[in-house]
Amino acid sequence: MKTRGYAVTSAKAPLADFEFERRSLRPRDVALDIYYSGICHSDIHQAREEWGPAIFPMVPGHEIVGKVIEIGSQVSKFKVGELIGVGVFIDSCKNCASCGAGLEQYCVEGMTGTYNALERDGKTIAFGGYSDKFVIDEDYAVHVPSNLELSGVAPLMCAGVTLYSPLKNWNAGPGKKVGIMGLGGLGHMGVKFAHALGAQTTVFSHSPEKEADAKAMGADHFIVTKDIKELDKLKQSFDLILNTVSADLDLEPYLQMLKLDGTLVVIGLPGKPYAINAGTLLGQRRSLAGSMIGGMAELQQMLNFCGEHNIVSDVEVIKSDYINTAYDRTVASDVKYRFVIDAKTF
Amino acid sequence: MKTRGYAVTSAKAPLADFEFERRSLRPRDVALDIYYSGICHSDIHQAREEWGPAIFPMVPGHEIVGKVIEIGSQVSKFKVGELIGVGVFIDSCKNCASCGAGLEQYCVEGMTGTYNALERDGKTIAFGGYSDKFVIDEDYAVHVPSNLELSGVAPLMCAGVTLYSPLKNWNAGPGKKVGIMGLGGLGHMGVKFAHALGAQTTVFSHSPEKEADAKAMGADHFIVTKDIKELDKLKQSFDLILNTVSADLDLEPYLQMLKLDGTLVVIGLPGKPYAINAGTLLGQRRSLAGSMIGGMAELQQMLNFCGEHNIVSDVEVIKSDYINTAYDRTVASDVKYRFVIDAKTF
Repeated sequence: MKTRGYAVTSAKAPLADFEFERRSLRPRDVALDIYYSGICHSDIHQAREEWGPAIFPMVPGHEIVGKVIEIGSQVSKFKVGELIGVGVFIDSCKNCASCGAGLEQYCVEGMTGTYNALERDGKTIAFGGYSDKFVIDEDYAVHVPSNLELSGVAPLMCAGVTLYSPLKNWNAGPGKKVGIMGLGGLGHMGVKFAHALGAQTTVFSHSPEKEADAKAMGADHFIVTKDIKELDKLKQSFDLILNTVSADLDLEPYLQMLKLDGTLVVIGLPGKPYAINAGTLLGQRRSLAGSMIGGMAELQQMLNFCGEHNIVSDVEVIKSDYINTAYDRTVASDVKYRFVIDAKTF
Repeated sequence: MKTRGYAVTSAKAPLADFEFERRSLRPRDVALDIYYSGICHSDIHQAREEWGPAIFPMVPGHEIVGKVIEIGSQVSKFKVGELIGVGVFIDSCKNCASCGAGLEQYCVEGMTGTYNALERDGKTIAFGGYSDKFVIDEDYAVHVPSNLELSGVAPLMCAGVTLYSPLKNWNAGPGKKVGIMGLGGLGHMGVKFAHALGAQTTVFSHSPEKEADAKAMGADHFIVTKDIKELDKLKQSFDLILNTVSADLDLEPYLQMLKLDGTLVVIGLPGKPYAINAGTLLGQRRSLAGSMIGGMAELQQMLNFCGEHNIVSDVEVIKSDYINTAYDRTVASDVKYRFVIDAKTF
């Protein structure tokens, strides 16, 4: 299936037009016309080989929403014409305990990434969502509620579930105090979800000008972190804090804000290890944990929740020829709050 | 109440004979003859001011077992002649959520230590267990099963509950794989409890000569950690690992041994912060947590469990005039596995 997209051919090159073939449909495959494809900061890290050697040519993109245009002979989950979403992985072993539990992102053999990966045959390069068409095993795609603005749905497939999953796993809800560190592409989804789940929600940001946005998204409190002493007043007051900031920072004041049995969950990958004082963990039986995207079952659960609560990402829709500029602006945190490519422009 | 004990009068001084008065009984107080008092490594840290400024004169000791000799007018929990134990704290605020939940060790006002602390009147120095008599609010003492060797009971009051509490809190039991890092005063209690709780138990130790002891205590596996490559083979295989080692060490290979949703619990206080890679936590939704002794309810639960399973600490019973030597040997890890002072010798 002839496909048009954007690719990068080396870590130093800009993205450029790229034509390629997607596979013919296998019995359980679904083909889709892509409507929107989100730009995730991890696309940039991988395209620029900031996370280690990458596979080129690379068509980035793992926040995909579109419409089903063709189905394989054994497909039962989708019909032609339905809305469909694809996220950060396109396959997994299907046999391990994690896959069996619907936690394919933690597959013991490793999930198969939507791009910058080889498919499970060990040789076919997986091309991602910066393109006009996609082919996917139906098990790794989800239904998209019809009431949502589709451009804002695309980032739900990665940024959305990356926040939804830890909020659910660590029981954010009524009576719980939740902190969200950083109000960017990830953080703004955390605020919307934590609020919709009924938790009292506080945003920690170094940008005072974001307060109005944060409160409009559902934040009850907004703390400017430039004066670290402000955090001292909040010691032992949070059940759960999610760190969406990938920059190196000192977690100590944030850990101290956790109450008994509270958890700080990191979802970004900073360049250096965190320095963690054992005494701070011991003092109130606190935990530091990590969480990575979400499994297929949770991805669908999240989209259903978004449909019920009318939650989407705040986005700037761009044309394909703006991708390189959008990359630079994403690195500069100059986006509210996520770039999404209109796939008609490929 | 005239009391004989051992005290240290400055960080540089050895311990020496010390006579002092304990308070007359308040309505809810219990007086006891101490039979045995354990030596905890934290006694040494505090006596030598390795954990910051201390309160002198200091009578260390927070692993106390004895017999009730007198009760206050409103005491309902104990009778004269009963066995009794006292642990790491002698009071707390009794009003906060932690105290209400029986987790007095996490009292928001801070628990009142058994020694190196001021009582809640803010002026009376609390003298610990290296002595022949003790006076305690009945709420902060526990019943001791009569079938246990009493010298081995003393260390249960700190070392015991420090391991029992996290094993229970993180659900060690049948079908779970538990790792215990270090086979010393703390670690040997972890092995006994993890095994008795039904978990498959592995000891990580740098001392190959301890293997026979570990297996006799109930360990299923014994891994010598001198060759860190041995740990590589065990990636993603443990539900829970308890780090009893206070020395600075790299937790990375231990975190990697945790399976999905596994937890590494630190219970010691090393001199430097741990360096923790976010990616290792994210990769399998792992947690690094801390745990500190146990609350009064759990202390009693543990002693009952010990009575049922005939669990005590392995000890070397010493006379009071051996305390200073015992300190040096404890620092050198030359004890199997805990020194306990015969309180008749004060």
